[in-house]
Amino acid sequence: MTFLSNSLTPLFSPPPLLATTEAENGPLILSGVLLSLIVIYLASKLGAEAAKRFDFPPVLGELLAGVLVGVSALHLIIFPEGGLEASDSLLMTVLQFLNGLSPESVSTIFASQSEVISVLAEIGVIVLLFEIGLESDLRQLKEVGVQAVVVACVGVAVPFAAGTLGLMAIFHVAAIPAIFAGAALTATSIGITSKVLSELGQLKSKEGQIIVGAAVIDDVLGIIVLAVVASLAKTGEIDAVNVLYLILGATAFLIGAIVLGGVFNKTFVAIVEKLETRGNIIIPAFIFAFIMAFIGNAIHLEAILGAFAAGLVLDETDARQELDELIKPVADILVPIFFVTVGARADLRVLNPMVPENRAGLLIAVFLVLVAIAGKLVTGWTVFGQPGINRAAIGVGMIPRGEVGLVFAGIGSASGILSKPLEVSIIIMVILTTFLAPPFLRITFGNTDTPDANSELKKELVS
Amino acid sequence: MTFLSNSLTPLFSPPPLLATTEAENGPLILSGVLLSLIVIYLASKLGAEAAKRFDFPPVLGELLAGVLVGVSALHLIIFPEGGLEASDSLLMTVLQFLNGLSPESVSTIFASQSEVISVLAEIGVIVLLFEIGLESDLRQLKEVGVQAVVVACVGVAVPFAAGTLGLMAIFHVAAIPAIFAGAALTATSIGITSKVLSELGQLKSKEGQIIVGAAVIDDVLGIIVLAVVASLAKTGEIDAVNVLYLILGATAFLIGAIVLGGVFNKTFVAIVEKLETRGNIIIPAFIFAFIMAFIGNAIHLEAILGAFAAGLVLDETDARQELDELIKPVADILVPIFFVTVGARADLRVLNPMVPENRAGLLIAVFLVLVAIAGKLVTGWTVFGQPGINRAAIGVGMIPRGEVGLVFAGIGSASGILSKPLEVSIIIMVILTTFLAPPFLRITFGNTDTPDANSELKKELVS
Repeated sequence: MTFLSNSLTPLFSPPPLLATTEAENGPLILSGVLLSLIVIYLASKLGAEAAKRFDFPPVLGELLAGVLVGVSALHLIIFPEGGLEASDSLLMTVLQFLNGLSPESVSTIFASQSEVISVLAEIGVIVLLFEIGLESDLRQLKEVGVQAVVVACVGVAVPFAAGTLGLMAIFHVAAIPAIFAGAALTATSIGITSKVLSELGQLKSKEGQIIVGAAVIDDVLGIIVLAVVASLAKTGEIDAVNVLYLILGATAFLIGAIVLGGVFNKTFVAIVEKLETRGNIIIPAFIFAFIMAFIGNAIHLEAILGAFAAGLVLDETDARQELDELIKPVADILVPIFFVTVGARADLRVLNPMVPENRAGLLIAVFLVLVAIAGKLVTGWTVFGQPGINRAAIGVGMIPRGEVGLVFAGIGSASGILSKPLEVSIIIMVILTTFLAPPFLRITFGNTDTPDANSELKKELVS
Repeated sequence: MTFLSNSLTPLFSPPPLLATTEAENGPLILSGVLLSLIVIYLASKLGAEAAKRFDFPPVLGELLAGVLVGVSALHLIIFPEGGLEASDSLLMTVLQFLNGLSPESVSTIFASQSEVISVLAEIGVIVLLFEIGLESDLRQLKEVGVQAVVVACVGVAVPFAAGTLGLMAIFHVAAIPAIFAGAALTATSIGITSKVLSELGQLKSKEGQIIVGAAVIDDVLGIIVLAVVASLAKTGEIDAVNVLYLILGATAFLIGAIVLGGVFNKTFVAIVEKLETRGNIIIPAFIFAFIMAFIGNAIHLEAILGAFAAGLVLDETDARQELDELIKPVADILVPIFFVTVGARADLRVLNPMVPENRAGLLIAVFLVLVAIAGKLVTGWTVFGQPGINRAAIGVGMIPRGEVGLVFAGIGSASGILSKPLEVSIIIMVILTTFLAPPFLRITFGNTDTPDANSELKKELVS
């Protein structure tokens, strides 16, 4: 209906802002979203299958395929960040050519389309964490609770301290940006690690449970660190009330979810059994997951923590088996959007050492990468009372920073706290830890002599 | 992370438009979308279950629940159309209160959030039509092809002519708005009719196939009529090349899809069998469906026609059974967004006869509703060579105008072609035909003596 909107444009009264935009560009935004999803799905399937053929985890293939279609190479899936415009997007150029659009229309469509894909990716990671929560065993997670807390605290403290002090001492970075960069080293990416663990059939192993538990905890710790650092950057002093509020909120949220698990189980099953129309299980499950994600977001934690908690709670119900089956196709459709867009947003060109400006950043990057790897690797050796545990696997499992690290880089860059080389270094650190961890995780788990207790789950998840 | 974005705002350099908006409002847009989805899912489930208890089709309950949460009543799910702003939205008020936002931020978030929900609703109707295509039998649709064409043509010509001439003769409406309103009477809503048919287990009956076939065809015809009318409105004369292009494009698209069906079958199954990672069936199916939807959109037809064609093609493959199972949870999650938002957008307050301004519109509305119902009802008696067919059911099945009619009203209102009473009348016509058809369809099919050949499908779909 493009032609219509175009032909009607001269008749429009002065734009009542959005009503007009929507009526005019609606079908084109849909076209842009459909094109983006086609590219994302093609990339994710080709990447995953190629990775599988070379015996890598499929998720690594999805990330690399994302890089290929993203800002680093083909410019098919790009987002309006870092000065990128509609004219940089190959998809938008195609859309503009097909419909004879003005540059202004293309900009509006590009912005809306990017926002829709971003939200879909966020819903994708929410569904991913919900699924992972469903697959995690709460009782087992409680058993490794203390170990997970230790691993998380060490894994936050060591890279934060080493990164901040190293940047100040070796590279003479000012205190506030150094602290910010140090903070960016703290939070492990639950999403990527859990996906790889689940692909290796190790999600329910003791190591897997410690890693996921610690990743959940250090995500919370990371957010708290980010909050403190941002307060620092703004006022020059730490806002103690805010810090206290965040710490208490996060703790209450997770404990609350676990307690709720015991109470809500039977209510959920009772509701589901009363429903007679289509979607009787999946819709109530999604309502619950989204409410928890919303609460997570609303109390200034992360939506994914809420979704993970929702999965943990519903894992304890009788409807679990059926829900597991129903959630799979939904996750298959939504989760690749997250992984491909994480790859697509990462600009690998900042790695190019031929460009002189990149070299300062490269040295800092090498330092940050080493601290990021070493600072998490040591956490494996802090686990106590678990003889014969695969310490290397735990350390390696904590390495990927993924989406959380990218959030740090994004906020730091938008706020102007970070210099360009420092920002670039954080991005490189995020990319390398994200890309290196999956194969290393495979190697460390491959070296385990412990028999794989979850071969059935493994087969199911790897295929 | 709201507090962060807020606290960092003073540090932002003059906004590079979207990078800033996204970084600043990203988590709040997600919050808005999550809140909207929670309300939509709650409404859809409560509405569907209530309708089921009163023996109405669940889809009617979803629409009515949509009206309840929408612009007519609770103002939970509203869109920035017809002068509505963020401050009119209860959800936005909650979000503003929770986060202490400025009115400008709320406006931006409201706009983005509404766009995301709109696109999700559009993807919902794409998935719905894809699923309906999968459930339709192409060979059977071909058998009723001629009847469907006759029903469609009569169902477009009669309401168009009667509506346009009646408005000009009785209500002294000028030619161009009269033609536009007449055109708004033409296109049957495939989505609502098919959903009701499938709930009644009548999708594969001869009547069901004729209705769906005719709805597909008259949607194409409706778009052509709309194109012609829009050309008329713009230039005062019909653009013959554009009309020819549209007619040829639509025909080629549908015939092409059917021919492709014979060729693409084996390729699709061969690809699916080679894939070893998760989503091996559903992702290729969605890639195909979205490509077809994109083409449908790109050649100025509708995305849903492409998705329907894609479903028809994949229905012929061996992977069909498995795909049917996988698509269900995805449809359960996405389709309610469409039905609830259709209800939410319909402003029932324009029906209030206590407001004097509404009365002129009400008379026109009564006329349009009568023409809309009678003009489609007669189509049942144009079916030939099918002795014993349920003619009333076919006529009633063609009545709902739904989303397509709302598109007409939206474009007519945005372009200023339609006077307020005329616009209101079209909306009333759309609401009444949409709401009346499902129960009448149930009654007419209930009177059939033909044994229900699809009781299994029926049981499956109704539950």
